[in-house]
Amino acid sequence: MGLSTGFTAMFGIAHPVALAPMGGSAGGALAAAVASGGGLGLLGAADGDRAWLERELPLVAGCGGGWGVGFLTWAIDVAAVAWVLERGARTVMVSFGDPAPFAAVVRDAGAKLIVQVTDLDEARRALDAGADVLVAQGTEAGGHGASKGRSTLPFVPVVVDLAGDVPVLAAGGIADGRGLAAALALGAAGALIGTRFQATAEALVDPAITAAILAGRAEQTERNRTLDVVRGSSWPARYAARTLGHPYLQRWRGREDEVDDRARQDYQDDVAGGRIPPLPVWAGEGVDLITGVPPAAALVGELVEQAEAALGRIRRDSDKSGTDAPGTTVRLPVRHVCATPGDHES
Amino acid sequence: MGLSTGFTAMFGIAHPVALAPMGGSAGGALAAAVASGGGLGLLGAADGDRAWLERELPLVAGCGGGWGVGFLTWAIDVAAVAWVLERGARTVMVSFGDPAPFAAVVRDAGAKLIVQVTDLDEARRALDAGADVLVAQGTEAGGHGASKGRSTLPFVPVVVDLAGDVPVLAAGGIADGRGLAAALALGAAGALIGTRFQATAEALVDPAITAAILAGRAEQTERNRTLDVVRGSSWPARYAARTLGHPYLQRWRGREDEVDDRARQDYQDDVAGGRIPPLPVWAGEGVDLITGVPPAAALVGELVEQAEAALGRIRRDSDKSGTDAPGTTVRLPVRHVCATPGDHES
Repeated sequence: MGLSTGFTAMFGIAHPVALAPMGGSAGGALAAAVASGGGLGLLGAADGDRAWLERELPLVAGCGGGWGVGFLTWAIDVAAVAWVLERGARTVMVSFGDPAPFAAVVRDAGAKLIVQVTDLDEARRALDAGADVLVAQGTEAGGHGASKGRSTLPFVPVVVDLAGDVPVLAAGGIADGRGLAAALALGAAGALIGTRFQATAEALVDPAITAAILAGRAEQTERNRTLDVVRGSSWPARYAARTLGHPYLQRWRGREDEVDDRARQDYQDDVAGGRIPPLPVWAGEGVDLITGVPPAAALVGELVEQAEAALGRIRRDSDKSGTDAPGTTVRLPVRHVCATPGDHES
Repeated sequence: MGLSTGFTAMFGIAHPVALAPMGGSAGGALAAAVASGGGLGLLGAADGDRAWLERELPLVAGCGGGWGVGFLTWAIDVAAVAWVLERGARTVMVSFGDPAPFAAVVRDAGAKLIVQVTDLDEARRALDAGADVLVAQGTEAGGHGASKGRSTLPFVPVVVDLAGDVPVLAAGGIADGRGLAAALALGAAGALIGTRFQATAEALVDPAITAAILAGRAEQTERNRTLDVVRGSSWPARYAARTLGHPYLQRWRGREDEVDDRARQDYQDDVAGGRIPPLPVWAGEGVDLITGVPPAAALVGELVEQAEAALGRIRRDSDKSGTDAPGTTVRLPVRHVCATPGDHES
């Protein structure tokens, strides 16, 4: 049947699935695979590194309307956005910061602007800036997000109510088709998915990170600034990242203020020596549902099939409701099955 | 069409909605109203206070299979459960602790045991104890839960996978029919709903608390032990409660170890003087979606209608997918729309 929404119509794509533009790891091969599978493939351009983009852009250039470029708002200037628009990007996503400075250049190029938000104030600002699509990110998401975030399930419907006709994608904790179906039930026009796509054949990640995601459990994830501090990252303090466990998290959690040059050097030395992975393992709470490393295009199809199955199951169960299936108890009439409270209060 | 599930079949009820047994406030009138509306009404018996139960039980006694009694596992003994079973309860729910000691008395009475869980280990223990229904509670829930909790959307499907044929209810952040529909999409057999039912005509709450819930925003909620400590509550340290803002939260957050008899006396004096509400305002992240104080039976019907509408909207949008609706862009064929990565790597 397909799962068409305002989001799929806007981008002319088959499926309401977007690849989260995970910095560095959502490269051209992964974005192209997601596009080939019928979703929207977003390059993780992070701070807009030109060398990385020059390497990755050719891999998606043949993907029609099914691709775009995602940036970290706090890490780029307008020139970075103009640069990818000149090279054919028709979709730009910005996350974590004020989208307003980037809206005009995207609009003037006739491209679409997707803005990721983590609370209602950010959602209002994104709509004011003229966002074409909002991404409502819950705190169960892997990687960076608001330090004090909202959970996806209750956050999405309030963003949908605020956004009116602007399509909203749900992000955070979605790693199978049941999550995609839930996103649509909440009123979202699709799902933006990160961690699940880290464990695909095309993701640009160290094999140790893929292995950690396959082995990782949601209860081992936590949102922290610790690893950003100890690795000397320039992420602003108001964003923290959900990661799997890490020796330096154990060592410095709650003592981030005490991290000094010596600690940062130890971290770099341990990375260089192969004693710790080259990057934190950014992973969301959906990690429990990740059990294999499929090609990303096949994964998109699988997500949609699972979502359709989940929705079909609800329909089938409900279609039974008129009949007395064997083994079910007698169904009570609705309303007034109780003696009224007044009978007892007297 | 109705939304029948393994949960509605097990209890012989019309709708997959359960009232969370909120201690003290989920009284007989509220439980009876939920049962009358076609859901499962669970009395909030907390520590099993006999005087409270003797007052409230008669109000639900006429509700057939549509009611039960919820307890705090850490606060009761087996005798408390036996006592309600002798008085006609056919359903017992236990939360926050080891359910095993209570399983035999419930089973021997031919009653059903519902167990609330907050992580996968608890889910395994509940299944081992022979639970008839699991409630998977996410950290966005109002009131008490695990200090370090899981979010509902990614937690429910893994509990469903673990539980096999045992129905799972989703709890936490569900306050409208979209949330109910999402719960079903995730594989749950229904939703257990708390905060939304606090703002109903029948809830046993101070009007100041109802007003606070109507005015409250999800971003103002936080999970804390602070208020339990300052009010001298006996809740174990591993549980914290999601509440709206409170002067004593502001004053003592992060300094719970310093709370002394003087601070506790100040709190009691401020309650007695009406300067602070009589209880913390326990509220989940779904509070944004609460805009009125309906009768609870009507609310159950409204939740189901909204859920059916949400599911119907997905179907309608998808039925359009075969046709080119005016104004939509050209739909790309799925797969192989991109030049293959190999073309660029050479």
